[in-house]
Amino acid sequence: MKNSRFAVGLEHLSKIDGEAGQKVIESLQDICPDLAKFIIEYPFGDIYSRPTLDLKSREIATVAALTALGNCKPQLKVHLNAAMNVGCTVEEIKEVLLQMSVYAGFPAAINGMFAFKEVLDERNA
Amino acid sequence: MKNSRFAVGLEHLSKIDGEAGQKVIESLQDICPDLAKFIIEYPFGDIYSRPTLDLKSREIATVAALTALGNCKPQLKVHLNAAMNVGCTVEEIKEVLLQMSVYAGFPAAINGMFAFKEVLDERNA
Amino acid sequence: MKNSRFAVGLEHLSKIDGEAGQKVIESLQDICPDLAKFIIEYPFGDIYSRPTLDLKSREIATVAALTALGNCKPQLKVHLNAAMNVGCTVEEIKEVLLQMSVYAGFPAAINGMFAFKEVLDERNA
Amino acid sequence: MKNSRFAVGLEHLSKIDGEAGQKVIESLQDICPDLAKFIIEYPFGDIYSRPTLDLKSREIATVAALTALGNCKPQLKVHLNAAMNVGCTVEEIKEVLLQMSVYAGFPAAINGMFAFKEVLDERNA
Amino acid sequence: MKNSRFAVGLEHLSKIDGEAGQKVIESLQDICPDLAKFIIEYPFGDIYSRPTLDLKSREIATVAALTALGNCKPQLKVHLNAAMNVGCTVEEIKEVLLQMSVYAGFPAAINGMFAFKEVLDERNA
Amino acid sequence: MKNSRFAVGLEHLSKIDGEAGQKVIESLQDICPDLAKFIIEYPFGDIYSRPTLDLKSREIATVAALTALGNCKPQLKVHLNAAMNVGCTVEEIKEVLLQMSVYAGFPAAINGMFAFKEVLDERNA
Repeated sequence: MKNSRFAVGLEHLSKIDGEAGQKVIESLQDICPDLAKFIIEYPFGDIYSRPTLDLKSREIATVAALTALGNCKPQLKVHLNAAMNVGCTVEEIKEVLLQMSVYAGFPAAINGMFAFKEVLDERNA
Repeated sequence: MKNSRFAVGLEHLSKIDGEAGQKVIESLQDICPDLAKFIIEYPFGDIYSRPTLDLKSREIATVAALTALGNCKPQLKVHLNAAMNVGCTVEEIKEVLLQMSVYAGFPAAINGMFAFKEVLDERNA
Repeated sequence: MKNSRFAVGLEHLSKIDGEAGQKVIESLQDICPDLAKFIIEYPFGDIYSRPTLDLKSREIATVAALTALGNCKPQLKVHLNAAMNVGCTVEEIKEVLLQMSVYAGFPAAINGMFAFKEVLDERNA
Repeated sequence: MKNSRFAVGLEHLSKIDGEAGQKVIESLQDICPDLAKFIIEYPFGDIYSRPTLDLKSREIATVAALTALGNCKPQLKVHLNAAMNVGCTVEEIKEVLLQMSVYAGFPAAINGMFAFKEVLDERNA
Repeated sequence: MKNSRFAVGLEHLSKIDGEAGQKVIESLQDICPDLAKFIIEYPFGDIYSRPTLDLKSREIATVAALTALGNCKPQLKVHLNAAMNVGCTVEEIKEVLLQMSVYAGFPAAINGMFAFKEVLDERNA
Repeated sequence: MKNSRFAVGLEHLSKIDGEAGQKVIESLQDICPDLAKFIIEYPFGDIYSRPTLDLKSREIATVAALTALGNCKPQLKVHLNAAMNVGCTVEEIKEVLLQMSVYAGFPAAINGMFAFKEVLDERNA
């Protein structure tokens, strides 16, 4: 059963986060492989695999939350990529970041926007 | 022009937040009417009125952010109502709250879910 | 296998959080039973069941984190009880709360201390 | 010397926070008198007693920080009172709260404003 | 009218944030010029232009809030500069940062102080 | 008496944080020596010197809190070192970081784990 959660999770991680997600998993192998396993099983195996909410809406939620928290830029960048991977347009993502100025303040929105600029530059490179 | 932002904002506030939004505006009249004016003009006049992102996606972003921040229950309740007002289903909203366990921890998700329980009870009453 | 995680989690939840944990699980049944299931499976089935760290140290970590975050009083109260359930003394818990004045500021420490006062009063009642 | 810090702190606590500060100190006596002692000695004995910054500016800084953090309403209310005690006008304090919409988002500013409404109502009662 | 808010905002942005503010606005041009426009219009056009609170007090509030939040170093650095631009002395600013140890913990105060060290070094360079 | 708090604090700072703590103190000398003095006196002289809680438990609390807050990586790294200095094993510390995924979300736990990887690499170098 755990194997099933892991397999489902790995499939979703790959579909959503792509190469960036794979890199996080790999970077954790020598320090804490169990954290990598839990990331695959719980967020991606248990949560993102649920059918009730489409992946585009899920990534909008995640980008909004990480921008508002403002203390996890690497994960925000992974999910700015993920949002595009699952079908959000560049302009839709900018709207989410812009909207965070209302709920978490302008610095959070500005830092989110600059993180997105880095992501777009990296994809274009 | 400011009048135009105010008028556009009031229309969006009314459509999105409904009665709950109106109550916040009224509660601010005797302590700081300018804050009420700014809420109408900037979040609702300038941001929610932009066409690039549909209102359903906007409310998913807002519910996610407020749940993750975890320190603004009254505003979260307003936007849990707003999410339903603009077309999110009850089950979709629960998914957003559930997903926040991944990014802001289980306490944030649990408190968000209990806030939604209160909102649903108030709507049924 | 999932059943096994659930069973292990339920056992740990019961041992650690006692009646208070059970109440949270029950309160979630009508709004989101899946969140209750995930709480049992991931935090209690996957994490608290790991042998590497004793439960007393785990509760010290949890009380410290929830006090520092300062936005989840219900969960802090559950874990102030849990800390006592797994063997922390009242004085040790007060030290953890006191120490949070250094890392999260005096308001966080004061609010944590008052939450503990409520917990102790409820246990004495 | 500690006695001197305590005495200086008590004098500043009394001048700045007035009755509200005294109540916090008293409420801590049966749960953790050492926390009360540390509050008097470090924030009020060591910090607020320093001559470089006037008390009005100090309270503006504190009100801004507590409003932005958004998770410590009791302490915010104490310092909204304190700000008035040391010479801030009602209108100046509202400006500080309003300005927090820019840096911590509108929910933080709204909750700060409603806390101030409670403080003003309590003073008028 | 919007033009008027923009013009007023630009004047205040320039007076308060100086070159650093201008750089932020320019950096946003290719990723989201509307966010730049909103920064000029709302924070600087609507808020900082209000006469009720002097600019020195406004910058004390902003430096305090950004130090306490602790997740927006670039904006803190802009406003540490801004505080000096509008008349705060170096010693007054240090007092605000020091005081944040009380409300947001020592790490927040230390990181704020090191950000100020960078700002002072950059101004001296 | 202050001299006594300072002396006690310096001894504890040295025992707990080792060279890393000393570096922080030195880095503060040219920008704000009083902050350095207060760090020695309050956290280390007043708090860590109290006998009620062993240093291992204190560091578990600190690592948990700083990981959960997620906005003070330099201090987290100092205390990941400190945790080892006072007797926590590498595996115990990883458990604390892992457990924070439950209370502050996976990004906080992941960033904590990568900070620990840096600390271990620096110690091995």
